[in-house]
Amino acid sequence: MRIKLLITGGTIDKVYDELIGQLVFQRTYLIDMLNRSRSMVDTLSEVLFLKDSLDMSDIDRALIVKKCQESDTSHILITHGTDSMIRTAKLLAKEINNKTIVLFGSMIPYSINCSDALFNLGVALSAVQIKEYGVYITMNGQVFDFDKVEKNKEIGIFTLL
Amino acid sequence: MRIKLLITGGTIDKVYDELIGQLVFQRTYLIDMLNRSRSMVDTLSEVLFLKDSLDMSDIDRALIVKKCQESDTSHILITHGTDSMIRTAKLLAKEINNKTIVLFGSMIPYSINCSDALFNLGVALSAVQIKEYGVYITMNGQVFDFDKVEKNKEIGIFTLL
Amino acid sequence: MRIKLLITGGTIDKVYDELIGQLVFQRTYLIDMLNRSRSMVDTLSEVLFLKDSLDMSDIDRALIVKKCQESDTSHILITHGTDSMIRTAKLLAKEINNKTIVLFGSMIPYSINCSDALFNLGVALSAVQIKEYGVYITMNGQVFDFDKVEKNKEIGIFTLL
Amino acid sequence: MRIKLLITGGTIDKVYDELIGQLVFQRTYLIDMLNRSRSMVDTLSEVLFLKDSLDMSDIDRALIVKKCQESDTSHILITHGTDSMIRTAKLLAKEINNKTIVLFGSMIPYSINCSDALFNLGVALSAVQIKEYGVYITMNGQVFDFDKVEKNKEIGIFTLL
Repeated sequence: MRIKLLITGGTIDKVYDELIGQLVFQRTYLIDMLNRSRSMVDTLSEVLFLKDSLDMSDIDRALIVKKCQESDTSHILITHGTDSMIRTAKLLAKEINNKTIVLFGSMIPYSINCSDALFNLGVALSAVQIKEYGVYITMNGQVFDFDKVEKNKEIGIFTLL
Repeated sequence: MRIKLLITGGTIDKVYDELIGQLVFQRTYLIDMLNRSRSMVDTLSEVLFLKDSLDMSDIDRALIVKKCQESDTSHILITHGTDSMIRTAKLLAKEINNKTIVLFGSMIPYSINCSDALFNLGVALSAVQIKEYGVYITMNGQVFDFDKVEKNKEIGIFTLL
Repeated sequence: MRIKLLITGGTIDKVYDELIGQLVFQRTYLIDMLNRSRSMVDTLSEVLFLKDSLDMSDIDRALIVKKCQESDTSHILITHGTDSMIRTAKLLAKEINNKTIVLFGSMIPYSINCSDALFNLGVALSAVQIKEYGVYITMNGQVFDFDKVEKNKEIGIFTLL
Repeated sequence: MRIKLLITGGTIDKVYDELIGQLVFQRTYLIDMLNRSRSMVDTLSEVLFLKDSLDMSDIDRALIVKKCQESDTSHILITHGTDSMIRTAKLLAKEINNKTIVLFGSMIPYSINCSDALFNLGVALSAVQIKEYGVYITMNGQVFDFDKVEKNKEIGIFTLL
């Protein structure tokens, strides 16, 4: 089974820029993460953009939808910032019903000690291979239907709605 | 959904003992891994023993079977050394048919840089929540039926039989 | 030989706060770093404050001077943000001439993969034990006299003046 | 000041080989460590061999002496396994008296989480730039004269003789 991996940015890909003392995007680390994880899943990745999900526009979201619609494979993983992940998931569910789409991200960048990124990638990659057609969010070790999840911003946890 | 996590050792829990210059077992790190991963899955863990899977006896395997049979919850994760993981999976499949049991481990200890352990935990925890009753092995990002997988020891990769 | 370790913050002690997505101060990690490093040097540490060095006031700097003046031991290490480290070093050199004082910090927080923090701690701890009385800055593996160093902010490197 | 860095192996450069489940030598990581540490010290490195110090022969030690004698620069760092580090230091002190030579290593490989390697490199690199001619061992954050140190193998700590 081939998996399409669409990369859009979010916390997972942020790294520290020591000249400005801030976390920024430089490139994606998803391929490094898959290699380190010794994944043998047939994965074809594509970087759409590298953005905070709060900075995503309607045009950005339309591009994600279009890329999913055009995808040859029916199993799609999307990295996404957590703040508007549910909004994008709802849009995808409205437009697409013949694919398994799993959105995930991380609360702590892969570049930082004690990141949840590798674990989250594992949960998402497993779910996208197993679940029926539909749109899902995998965070905090759980697999949520797109319309039965909310992010509790007080504690940074996704919970069942 | 509650998950039972049975811990039996394997490479995943090995740490470096600087006094003897060897990798040894001291304690399990699975709870640390779940906390770091920000998992919110209801997980009840139990250490059965901490062994290389090549050192596992028939008595050890019988204990694993017994613990799975007696488990209140029907969703069970087992950490296991990779060398005899398939053998234990086959025994479990012969004895138990009313539970979802997922075995996993890692090729590189969690305590070593660039370990695959966190990713593998994610894949396994996702699979045990989704898959129908049966016995599965999750390694290299894939979810294998217990009787359709082999370990290629030349390259350290689990592949479809 | 006892070493006094005065902790004032700077990049070295910053950690990622996943709820606000920013690097912040929570506590110092210098003691963890010394333990991990298996240091057997008799080190007495004291946190004066945890600040970006750009946020340090004249009152903060006066406190650092006072603590150095009052120190029982004549060998003092100071963690400090890199942006105003040289300014504090010059003030210390003006006020104190009977002690060996070494200021250091890091360009990348200890909490981030590939940090220079542990190495920098080693360079500083070594220098403070060996150098004659005076005020020094150790960054980029080098031991600079306080009045013969500048920070090149374009590339984030301390160089000989 | 140019530093010659002679690399001979020891725990510091060991990595995990997942196919045999053992720690082995593949290549040196000292250059990676210096780059990560943002060291700007002029360092010229040479790998003599990669060995456990218990496996070092008289011929190996003679090569180390010869390389130090022939070195253009009078400041030399040597990575070395901890078990026979003191023996090599004594031999060097007998043969060479016009150079500053610092031997160091680590108790935990650089490739393993919580390694002391980066810190030890910092201590050694600092000492070799500051100390008078002589042969020194830097371990556990301390700078020892070659003839005033012993390794306590019970606890894995170098202490003053």
